[in-house]
Amino acid sequence: MADAAELHRLAVELGKRIVRMTTAAGSGHPSSALSLAHITAHLVFHKMRHDPADPWNPANDRLILSEGHAVPVVYAAWAMLGGVVGRSRREARRLTDEDLLTLRACDSVLDGHPNPAEGFPFFDAATGSLGQGLSVAAGLALAARDDGLDRRFYVLIGDGESREGQIWEAADFIVDHQLTNICAIFNANGQGQAGLVSPQQAAERLAGKLEAFGWQVVTIDGHDPQQIEQALAAFGENERPLAVVARTIKGWGVELLQQGNWHGKPLSADKLDEALASLDRTLAQLAPNASGSTPAPPKPAPATLRSAPDPREVAWPSFREAVEAAGLGAALEKGKLATRRGYGVALRTAGDLLPQVVALDGDVSNSTMADLFAKAHPQRFYECKIAEQNMISAAAGLSAAGRIAFANSFAKFLARGYDQLEMAVISRANIKLVGSHAGVSLAADGPSQMGLPDVAYFRSYTTVRADDRTSPLCWLFQPADAVAAYRLTRLMTQLPGLCYMRTHRPDVPLLYDDEAEFRPGGLNVLRNGEDAALIASGYMVHVALRAAALLARQNLRVAVLDAYSLPIDAERLLELLTRSAT
Amino acid sequence: MADAAELHRLAVELGKRIVRMTTAAGSGHPSSALSLAHITAHLVFHKMRHDPADPWNPANDRLILSEGHAVPVVYAAWAMLGGVVGRSRREARRLTDEDLLTLRACDSVLDGHPNPAEGFPFFDAATGSLGQGLSVAAGLALAARDDGLDRRFYVLIGDGESREGQIWEAADFIVDHQLTNICAIFNANGQGQAGLVSPQQAAERLAGKLEAFGWQVVTIDGHDPQQIEQALAAFGENERPLAVVARTIKGWGVELLQQGNWHGKPLSADKLDEALASLDRTLAQLAPNASGSTPAPPKPAPATLRSAPDPREVAWPSFREAVEAAGLGAALEKGKLATRRGYGVALRTAGDLLPQVVALDGDVSNSTMADLFAKAHPQRFYECKIAEQNMISAAAGLSAAGRIAFANSFAKFLARGYDQLEMAVISRANIKLVGSHAGVSLAADGPSQMGLPDVAYFRSYTTVRADDRTSPLCWLFQPADAVAAYRLTRLMTQLPGLCYMRTHRPDVPLLYDDEAEFRPGGLNVLRNGEDAALIASGYMVHVALRAAALLARQNLRVAVLDAYSLPIDAERLLELLTRSAT
Repeated sequence: MADAAELHRLAVELGKRIVRMTTAAGSGHPSSALSLAHITAHLVFHKMRHDPADPWNPANDRLILSEGHAVPVVYAAWAMLGGVVGRSRREARRLTDEDLLTLRACDSVLDGHPNPAEGFPFFDAATGSLGQGLSVAAGLALAARDDGLDRRFYVLIGDGESREGQIWEAADFIVDHQLTNICAIFNANGQGQAGLVSPQQAAERLAGKLEAFGWQVVTIDGHDPQQIEQALAAFGENERPLAVVARTIKGWGVELLQQGNWHGKPLSADKLDEALASLDRTLAQLAPNASGSTPAPPKPAPATLRSAPDPREVAWPSFREAVEAAGLGAALEKGKLATRRGYGVALRTAGDLLPQVVALDGDVSNSTMADLFAKAHPQRFYECKIAEQNMISAAAGLSAAGRIAFANSFAKFLARGYDQLEMAVISRANIKLVGSHAGVSLAADGPSQMGLPDVAYFRSYTTVRADDRTSPLCWLFQPADAVAAYRLTRLMTQLPGLCYMRTHRPDVPLLYDDEAEFRPGGLNVLRNGEDAALIASGYMVHVALRAAALLARQNLRVAVLDAYSLPIDAERLLELLTRSAT
Repeated sequence: MADAAELHRLAVELGKRIVRMTTAAGSGHPSSALSLAHITAHLVFHKMRHDPADPWNPANDRLILSEGHAVPVVYAAWAMLGGVVGRSRREARRLTDEDLLTLRACDSVLDGHPNPAEGFPFFDAATGSLGQGLSVAAGLALAARDDGLDRRFYVLIGDGESREGQIWEAADFIVDHQLTNICAIFNANGQGQAGLVSPQQAAERLAGKLEAFGWQVVTIDGHDPQQIEQALAAFGENERPLAVVARTIKGWGVELLQQGNWHGKPLSADKLDEALASLDRTLAQLAPNASGSTPAPPKPAPATLRSAPDPREVAWPSFREAVEAAGLGAALEKGKLATRRGYGVALRTAGDLLPQVVALDGDVSNSTMADLFAKAHPQRFYECKIAEQNMISAAAGLSAAGRIAFANSFAKFLARGYDQLEMAVISRANIKLVGSHAGVSLAADGPSQMGLPDVAYFRSYTTVRADDRTSPLCWLFQPADAVAAYRLTRLMTQLPGLCYMRTHRPDVPLLYDDEAEFRPGGLNVLRNGEDAALIASGYMVHVALRAAALLARQNLRVAVLDAYSLPIDAERLLELLTRSAT
């Protein structure tokens, strides 16, 4: 049994740093952070097996702060440990108490909400848009289990936040996949932003819901050191995923912050001394003789990860070989195959060649054709059922554990996870979204099944430069035939970060042979002509080719270009237009 | 007690029409539809108080088919009743059995999934992207209660579909608002598209979850007429929202469809006779002597709706008067006010003038400034807590009941509901989304709070023509000052359909006086100049004005145009550019 007085002391130490840094920043959420002081202290200093000098160690236990606005409590703990920050090992340096006063500054590693891409590698994914952390943990936990690593994942979730349906999608997913290496801790402080938390998110109600979802649940006082320790003591031996519902006090330790609505408001500088004195009084009451230094957390077990081949260096079979191997050889004789099937063949092949490739699907794998992967690599296929938000955030978690994660659904239904996708982009997650049945080609089913504004949405990301300042934040692909789908899928395994590919339902003629070139930003000339040029992509390439053939009967020579990629390489387009007109 | 034999007979009658119409269409979901045969028959023929000759009657009980792909069962029942279809009363005609064979045809009123805009007014909203119907029902039920109408709402939800987190957001919302006029019926047939439904969505598990969420739950055999009737008998007297978990058989009555995976697959024409014979055999076993005609459903109680003023005809107070009335008069002296506050003032004023204006918010009303409305019109303000998907679908439901529904959150978090929004657009819902803290002006909080690709997304809808063939499917507004926000909000109350407005956090100088003109597609010249023109919107207008002032010191005369609306009126833009350069 750890010393209760020590945990109170550590909580107060965190509290002082929380109020100091948020007052210095002039914004932030001290009251939410304070409600997590004891739980965070227990986790980061006592419970989690991790190496503050090496937050990249793949054996570290991890904390996922789903209620991202409470992040000052984690920054405070990290500074007390002198934990390492930096965008890479090369930039690694230890965080200090002085650094805390740079919270939210433009060039600080301490972003307003958790953000590993800004240089805080203690976290695996950006959070702050609520309800996503449990799904991210699910992705990490799947990867850990498949890697044979005894890592554990602690997720801190706000009570108000647990209104988000995604939390319950994740709760189902974690039970389905028996991810007992996850502990979800619900911070029931009873206060939201605009008002009190609904009785539907009260501690008892949350506990009842979690039990009904199949979780093992313990309800505790989140400021009682012994209750915290006992609740987590058996974690790792539980047969069901473990949830701890912790009743807490928003603004714990600082009387001022417990009066009225202080959500998201820092104390002004003139109130700082009173807040610090309030924390001292709290400690004097709870643990008058507490003293000591910051404890070192338990070390992670040594771990080695299997090495994975470089996707740019593996040799792929030809399209035709891969189609035969997938049992679709008959299509080659007909000369027709749907782009979604070309993708399915490619995904299966990627799975053969690259052990780090995983796939997720939302109960439509027999439409997206991800089932070709599922049959060949069942242990790396994660059925998410009809819950797209969880699927995309889980893909981000898998990416953080080194996977190349392909998430599949109808293009229409992926729109359900755009907010999750935006968070994954902030994390620079290596995820590939593939939306099938895009556009209007699925006419008979009606518009509820059609992905229509998706190109506009993803195109906006293709116009933003990534960290390397040259490639875009997203590549958008739309193959015109199954060969293109196959080759573009291969390309997606080689491109870091977000890619989005649209596929279509109908079988279409094969346009390309195995020698055709496909590259990011590329275009292909399918027909020359000097009178006009049609630039199309996807299914519309076939329509453009038919139009060009009709126009040829009128003696109009019309070029057809397949613009399978966004952003388009404009110089190359001009060059091709010039050439195709000669 | 109704006659069990009769319900079996009606179920078989529905079944025959289901297989006939899906076979004729060559696509569709007969097996899902068949699993709902008894429940639909009981609801549409016996239980619901509604007028098949007038589906627009505001007193009708309503059925919301959340699992939209099962829609053939409803079309079949409607044809048996000779229920009215058509886009308006002017186009009204009775549906016949022959019409059923036009299922999914391009010009048919029988869309592949429920779609009132195509001429099937039995439904209030498009469904088919899953998990949204319960939220739509919540919006309808709120409006019915506020209108003093004793309407009841039956929602049919698939078991696999109940994996969607939005179902649980709606479950919370309905308990919060005590909407006991809703009955949710879960169709537990155990089969999804790609495989079996997860044990997490099994009947017992669903029942346990619903109880934990605070619902009254009955579990029944969904093909047992007496159990169906008994489960629903007390609906209307229940103190908690009522859920019925019905165990059903996918492909009920047709042996062929119960073998293997028939999700989403119609029978080929050569199997039709065997399917019809199978239904006959089923009836011979269950009710050998059943006969009779189609029963007429109970009539709705007479109802009169309060009439609402035409938003184009009410006189608004001036911006300054409205700001004073909202208690923000001090801002006028300073000459600075945030656009989100100008919006809050306008929303409050709209509530004063238009009883049909309602507002929804996701626990951030003190940021979006919807709380100005909430304080003045608490009975028309619906707090949705942190659950944006439910909020947007509930707004669509409120719209279907005649409300002008303003849904509010940070622009970033509205992205969580884009799929719901797309369904609302298909329904032509009269909803106004207002996203606050748009763009990067909230810098200190980091990207997790910033709406960035939202303009690209909504702009794509501004490029599509609405049914009138002249206005766009969506108007996008971005006010540069609080006056513009006030006036554009007024404009939004007058424009039918979807509008999206972005507001910003910081206080900005007032640019406009009360005489300024604002109109859809409009632009305003804020500064003349013949050397160059800066076209900006929102916060960037202030940056453009500062840039123009700086350039003026270099003797460059730079015009500044406020393009507060998308789509831009290109002719007007050219005209203004010409004029501002003179």
